[in-house]
Amino acid sequence: MLRSCAARLRTLGAPPARRPGLVWRLFSSEKVIHKDYGLPNPSWSKDLRLLFDQFMKKCEDGSWKRLPSYRQNPQIFKDFQTRFVDPRFAKEEQMSKAQQFTRSFEEGLGFEYVMFYNKAEKRMVCLFQSGLHLQGVPGYVHGGAIATIIDVTTGTCAIAEGIAMTANLNIDYKKEATCDHQVECDGSWHPGTMQEQ
Amino acid sequence: MLRSCAARLRTLGAPPARRPGLVWRLFSSEKVIHKDYGLPNPSWSKDLRLLFDQFMKKCEDGSWKRLPSYRQNPQIFKDFQTRFVDPRFAKEEQMSKAQQFTRSFEEGLGFEYVMFYNKAEKRMVCLFQSGLHLQGVPGYVHGGAIATIIDVTTGTCAIAEGIAMTANLNIDYKKEATCDHQVECDGSWHPGTMQEQ
Repeated sequence: MLRSCAARLRTLGAPPARRPGLVWRLFSSEKVIHKDYGLPNPSWSKDLRLLFDQFMKKCEDGSWKRLPSYRQNPQIFKDFQTRFVDPRFAKEEQMSKAQQFTRSFEEGLGFEYVMFYNKAEKRMVCLFQSGLHLQGVPGYVHGGAIATIIDVTTGTCAIAEGIAMTANLNIDYKKEATCDHQVECDGSWHPGTMQEQ
Repeated sequence: MLRSCAARLRTLGAPPARRPGLVWRLFSSEKVIHKDYGLPNPSWSKDLRLLFDQFMKKCEDGSWKRLPSYRQNPQIFKDFQTRFVDPRFAKEEQMSKAQQFTRSFEEGLGFEYVMFYNKAEKRMVCLFQSGLHLQGVPGYVHGGAIATIIDVTTGTCAIAEGIAMTANLNIDYKKEATCDHQVECDGSWHPGTMQEQ
């Protein structure tokens, strides 16, 4: 689907956020009070389940880790509140209604994906299946939806090393992807940049 | 929000699609059987309504045109079927369940936007307000959602000149956008590229 993609990420304000221990904890399953969307559901295709099983196998020796994924994560929110003094972040009531963009769809209709992280290689793999509500031109996945899943993969990989936001996103689309498409995004972290094939 | 953005678009397969008359018709209100989402609703902020009114005023002399926007558009689908023989596009039953990515959210929670087109200037303006389900890191709009609204603006501008898909999307994010953000995207068409400020 993609010929090439590059994303530059920058840390989000001061102080510099490089506390892998803390951020890695955000991926853990501690204090989980919401549904984990990074698990198979009936909408997943046979191929996606197969890939999922392959990566779960790789997790057995601890080299890879499956990342749970939520619509809301109060732990991450609290962490951001601690770091930023900006009063916009103090609106806890409003923020409690906010949802993760990629998890705001009904099962099977939007972004169906799971991410696996290899800490030693600083590498993130995202297994992704698109739903029928991600349509751009008829029959094809929207270019913005493709950009989103790339941004999620590279961004989450960067967040494993410190809180970050995308500074540049540069995508060459090789060919169109149909709405029933599934793909494996593979990103690795190099300071200042992310590369994805 | 954005320092700069560039998008390259390519026509979608053969034959080259440069029939402005036909494509322009896709923007018309003929045969509308679905709700038009490019109109104000109670979730719109005062500022967004004000901008909307300003552009509606510009439409009075015919230089600008507001583009209606739907979750599904059978006319566009039929047009794509005529152009492409690929059997994937013949699955009308499946495609009838597909929805436009940017219109697949409940009122006020996702992409609230309206586009205005100036045919003489080949220029598209998108007035956009983000909802709480477009969140990336807590409190901020997801980079993928920002990429999506840019892709929608540039893509729709290109489609006014012929059916097209995004070939490259290159975005520099100047600063973060909060979840209650609104912005005016302004794109113009030059053969082979789109520039947006």
